[in-house]
Amino acid sequence: MSLSIAHLGPKGTNAETAAIAYADWLQKNQGQTVNLIPYPSIAQTIYAGADQAVDLAIVPVENSTEGGIAITLDALWERGNLQIQQELVLPIIHVLLSRGIALEGIQTVYSHPQALGQCQKWLEHHLPQARLIASNSTTEAIQFIQQDPTSAAIASPRAAKLYDFPVLAADINDYPDNCTRFWVLGLKPSLQGSHTALAFSFPANVPGALVRPLQIFANRNINLSRIESRPTKRSLGEYLFFMDLESSQSQANLQEALAELKPYTEILKVFGSYYILSLQKEDRIHF
Amino acid sequence: MSLSIAHLGPKGTNAETAAIAYADWLQKNQGQTVNLIPYPSIAQTIYAGADQAVDLAIVPVENSTEGGIAITLDALWERGNLQIQQELVLPIIHVLLSRGIALEGIQTVYSHPQALGQCQKWLEHHLPQARLIASNSTTEAIQFIQQDPTSAAIASPRAAKLYDFPVLAADINDYPDNCTRFWVLGLKPSLQGSHTALAFSFPANVPGALVRPLQIFANRNINLSRIESRPTKRSLGEYLFFMDLESSQSQANLQEALAELKPYTEILKVFGSYYILSLQKEDRIHF
Repeated sequence: MSLSIAHLGPKGTNAETAAIAYADWLQKNQGQTVNLIPYPSIAQTIYAGADQAVDLAIVPVENSTEGGIAITLDALWERGNLQIQQELVLPIIHVLLSRGIALEGIQTVYSHPQALGQCQKWLEHHLPQARLIASNSTTEAIQFIQQDPTSAAIASPRAAKLYDFPVLAADINDYPDNCTRFWVLGLKPSLQGSHTALAFSFPANVPGALVRPLQIFANRNINLSRIESRPTKRSLGEYLFFMDLESSQSQANLQEALAELKPYTEILKVFGSYYILSLQKEDRIHF
Repeated sequence: MSLSIAHLGPKGTNAETAAIAYADWLQKNQGQTVNLIPYPSIAQTIYAGADQAVDLAIVPVENSTEGGIAITLDALWERGNLQIQQELVLPIIHVLLSRGIALEGIQTVYSHPQALGQCQKWLEHHLPQARLIASNSTTEAIQFIQQDPTSAAIASPRAAKLYDFPVLAADINDYPDNCTRFWVLGLKPSLQGSHTALAFSFPANVPGALVRPLQIFANRNINLSRIESRPTKRSLGEYLFFMDLESSQSQANLQEALAELKPYTEILKVFGSYYILSLQKEDRIHF
């Protein structure tokens, strides 16, 4: 039976590229066929997974230039039932699409806030006159500029081909090693993997509370590959902490560390263990 | 001589409200007069302070619902010469402005991404049909909806009065205790205060590197009130860490902790020590 996978749409987004690469991988390695379903926002993509409208949801979790995707972390914490089945790392290249003939004529640039952020210095330097307008996705941005040669969209080279839209400037991301991590989310428990993700809150504001969890992991030689704080939204100065741990050595060691951590936390959610699949740039042009 | 203070404009933003309250405070406590200067973006507000185009710059650094303001942290790290002179905490209330007569007729909502984020659940519930469009500030959003009764803007109650614009829905922020922290930035060294902010990077990827700094502060009873990671932008998985410490007890103790921390870091930047001024809701209506 075909697996349904939700991703941020419309067709041509980087999330869809990640989903296509993952679908290829499933086909090759497990003979599994896949049906991709675009959703209008990252939050709705996650809710589709949590509510079993789809089998899996693929969402961005962090970009190397812009950092964590807050909506992904907040929705994961809120729903709590999703597990990470796989991590995908995708190199991200941005191009500027427009029917205009020169940069000087561009007055408005549309894109997803992450893409605008990843091209911020380029935009300040080359289009200081342009108004920047956020869209729900990089490909949604293309809809807004169809007929207007004074507007442009930042999207992927793949979207440029897919929508047959002229590229006014290529490779406009500020940092060449621009990458995004995506998580494949589903309801199946994820017990094996090189990395483990979790999040926790503390009971009220305990001074120095964060030292203890870090010590628990350090004492057991479990390396922390990422930590990110998010507000609890209850009151200023109260945080949740999201952590990614390197958990390849021993699941028993990890489980003991989590048992030791639990009493220090108010709520502890473990989002599962997963392996990381690095997608090459070439994967981006198979479509 | 009058002090010039940069803030995100145009008139009526929450940043301007914070700047007005701070100007009142300076007038009352130091007899200092102030000249407020609006800038079109948070980044340009910070650069104005760093480049001495103004004496001080007031920028948001964190919201209790949406979390850290990435552009503020990134620009502070990049410039490095600014010191925090004061922290201001402002309660934030959002209202929906429109010339439309019913929520059902609203097709587009403009606002700053932070305001859209702080009202996300309200928008999903009351305006599921609306397209959300990001603007550079809450008051810039008002410009876009002047004549169109199918569009609305999220802005402050103060902006509604200032621009004499009808309020279609009041108090639409998702969380009632919605607050934003603002930093008053200037070039004068900040050596005294109840809190100290700093940021550092590590030399390459050292496993468990973060435990050591936290231990140094915990051993000296210096409480960490906030930690936030930002990507170095060089490569995925490399981070800077921004920390706010409670430093009211002893500056000598803090200086010793920083000296102990330095060898473990690649770059360590101290953004100074500052006191926190909590602004009451009433401060928001003096204009």
